[in-house]
Amino acid sequence: MEILSENKCFGGVQGVYSHMSKISACDMTFGLFLPAEADDGPVPVLWYLSGLTCTHANAMDKSAAQGWAAEQGIAIIFPDTSPRGEGVADDEAYDLGQGAGFYVNATQSPWASHFQMWNYIIDELPGLVTKEFAIDPDRQSITGHSMGGHGALTIAMTLQDRFKSVSAFAPIAHPTMSEWGRKQLGAYLGSDESKWVGHDATLLMRDKGFDGPMLIDQGGSDQFLDLLMPEALAHAIAERRQEAVFRLHKGYDHSYFFISSFMEDHIAFHADALYG
Amino acid sequence: MEILSENKCFGGVQGVYSHMSKISACDMTFGLFLPAEADDGPVPVLWYLSGLTCTHANAMDKSAAQGWAAEQGIAIIFPDTSPRGEGVADDEAYDLGQGAGFYVNATQSPWASHFQMWNYIIDELPGLVTKEFAIDPDRQSITGHSMGGHGALTIAMTLQDRFKSVSAFAPIAHPTMSEWGRKQLGAYLGSDESKWVGHDATLLMRDKGFDGPMLIDQGGSDQFLDLLMPEALAHAIAERRQEAVFRLHKGYDHSYFFISSFMEDHIAFHADALYG
Repeated sequence: MEILSENKCFGGVQGVYSHMSKISACDMTFGLFLPAEADDGPVPVLWYLSGLTCTHANAMDKSAAQGWAAEQGIAIIFPDTSPRGEGVADDEAYDLGQGAGFYVNATQSPWASHFQMWNYIIDELPGLVTKEFAIDPDRQSITGHSMGGHGALTIAMTLQDRFKSVSAFAPIAHPTMSEWGRKQLGAYLGSDESKWVGHDATLLMRDKGFDGPMLIDQGGSDQFLDLLMPEALAHAIAERRQEAVFRLHKGYDHSYFFISSFMEDHIAFHADALYG
Repeated sequence: MEILSENKCFGGVQGVYSHMSKISACDMTFGLFLPAEADDGPVPVLWYLSGLTCTHANAMDKSAAQGWAAEQGIAIIFPDTSPRGEGVADDEAYDLGQGAGFYVNATQSPWASHFQMWNYIIDELPGLVTKEFAIDPDRQSITGHSMGGHGALTIAMTLQDRFKSVSAFAPIAHPTMSEWGRKQLGAYLGSDESKWVGHDATLLMRDKGFDGPMLIDQGGSDQFLDLLMPEALAHAIAERRQEAVFRLHKGYDHSYFFISSFMEDHIAFHADALYG
């Protein structure tokens, strides 16, 4: 593992690190905020999965999460959204290939050799960060934005025992029925739609839900509402009687100005679960 | 004036606007955060002047200022750091020309025809924003980072009656004695150093100080400490018995992770003065 940068931030350290990923078969970069409390022993951790076109840096720079995490003594991991580099397949579209891993394990050519983001996020990167940093594997929660909200919800509902809580900002909520989903799931997983169902938050909510609290924030003026399909997830949450808060915020769009506006609430929500 | 974007943010609006600047003889872009209170009437305003290489966007995206400004009901203006465009002079160096206006009125060729940032910040832009938005011209304060801290301090000490308070993050504190200063003041104002003295915060502090409270934050691990010369300003503050708080923060560097870590304190400091 290589240190790319470390900046003191709210009494802790905002670092950026790279490592050779076996699963991704390329170098991968991630950001990690460690609060001051990590000097004294392992701290709880919140995973933040980013959206289409993002790297590890966008939320690290723009979400204003570190101050609230420092207040709660929680670490935040900001993974990249896909494998990257010269030897890695890509597509001209912004929503496929590099920057658009969709948090699945690709089975199809040309993607399968590098695009294994599901296993990278649930297996390889947790192994690395809990080995290298003072992070408590027994106190993990997960959040994300847009494609990353999709990733957070699907991963949390699949690994029921790992995460104390899950939240999402404007998640891609029903990708098997949306052009933000059908295109990518088809490309990465193939045309057999039975392989897609484990990667659709609405279908997973209908099937099993999440054994813990859930918080969803959605901007009412989001320019991508038709692609995100929050109504499908809200319906499934209510139908299941899932422990959840679903908030529709008038006037907010899909930007980091929306995310930062409600970050305090998300960190406090996860802190309640992580310290509960 | 043209609206480039408006995003709802912490109950208010983060806008980006452009206008034809007479003083700069080119189009200029600025960011403006207006809190919800602006719907009911004019609100106090904090000017945030940015540093070398920045546009209006850096602090708007990365300083985490909007949440604290919303809490206090204060607007924040994020001006650009120089004139820009094809017809505007520039230099290959990152610290001269576009992105490096240094908040002076250039008198020298090729800069004089566009680089009039002092007058743009103290005259033209205030006229525009108080005309177009619910901003109270009688309740203004000013801050900035690095080159922008230099701008904030020199402008506040020159226009004693305009600003209720002034603060700075890692300001260029003594530019007439630093390579961050001598190069630019020479290029923009010419080799007669008597013309530079109005643009050096340490010299202005020795000469007159500021009739109000001042807050300076400086990172102890700032990679540019030798160029910033905070010791000169600290000495001058103490010698004058200026009402001021000067804080040296161990381990912090020159980045936005430093700025965002202490933004809450700066906004609260200015709010005390603006509502006092």
